[in-house]
Amino acid sequence: MVWLQKLFTKTDKENNISDKIYDRDWVTLDQEIFGRSKVFFSTTQDIDLYELEELCDSVGWARRPLRKVRKALDNSYLVASAWEVKGAKTVMIGFARATSDHSFNATIWDVVIHPRFQKKGLGKTFMKYIIKKLRSDDISNVTLFADPQVVDFYRRLGFVLDPEGIKGMFWYPD
Amino acid sequence: MVWLQKLFTKTDKENNISDKIYDRDWVTLDQEIFGRSKVFFSTTQDIDLYELEELCDSVGWARRPLRKVRKALDNSYLVASAWEVKGAKTVMIGFARATSDHSFNATIWDVVIHPRFQKKGLGKTFMKYIIKKLRSDDISNVTLFADPQVVDFYRRLGFVLDPEGIKGMFWYPD
Repeated sequence: MVWLQKLFTKTDKENNISDKIYDRDWVTLDQEIFGRSKVFFSTTQDIDLYELEELCDSVGWARRPLRKVRKALDNSYLVASAWEVKGAKTVMIGFARATSDHSFNATIWDVVIHPRFQKKGLGKTFMKYIIKKLRSDDISNVTLFADPQVVDFYRRLGFVLDPEGIKGMFWYPD
Repeated sequence: MVWLQKLFTKTDKENNISDKIYDRDWVTLDQEIFGRSKVFFSTTQDIDLYELEELCDSVGWARRPLRKVRKALDNSYLVASAWEVKGAKTVMIGFARATSDHSFNATIWDVVIHPRFQKKGLGKTFMKYIIKKLRSDDISNVTLFADPQVVDFYRRLGFVLDPEGIKGMFWYPD
């Protein structure tokens, strides 16, 4: 079982003051599955581009020019990240971002969870965290483009394929 | 036949200086179809929200709070519009906008052409204009979500449905 502490606790008493400053949402993990790892989610944590590249490498994504990645992050409405804390070390284990018009629509891109943390419920909790953030900003139309192998994962989270026949399309140069 | 003058003319000699200031791209129209209408496209023309609402009304779209529409326009990467000039009168006859990370992705939303100008090739020329703008900014991934009745329209423009099985998905609240 994985769940987000904030989703279930109304009081912030037990949270560290620095968690508030740094906007850290701690995740409650099952020790039997995750051992002594501590994990938090954030939308304000600084992203080191090399660390992000390493994370994307771990799932086999094609490399992209860091200059363009920087620009994309700077112009994303939401940049969410998941972090493992082990002693003094904090390592990025998850990432996603969303473009948006800040009003009606948000589109989620580049969702990645480190293979070590896949198939344990963490990705699901991370996506719920992202959806909650977007919905709390009154954005009603949350969309994404899913690779075939993750369609069922997103379906279980409440994402619907082609609702009312609406189709996602990609423009390809002639 | 409808085509964009700029797409085929290298020289700006014949263009009015104010067209450059206001970023107006004049469209060459077939007089037999369009009569004495003159039409231009722009990405910088001021959008009157009531005029936009009227245009959306003309195609039967549900009304949206103007405050949210304003915010969405302010936070769109591209706001494109099409205008008919008849004597001293300039009327908005087309609209579309795109969200983007300014780097990799752009998603086109709210494409509307006034019914008087539909099925005459103007929508096609307008979409080509938008794609050209996005591509000239080095944005390679141009996407949209198409209603069933316009899937073929976008297909003819080079948009591909579910490439490599990638599916557009919408999140729906439980």
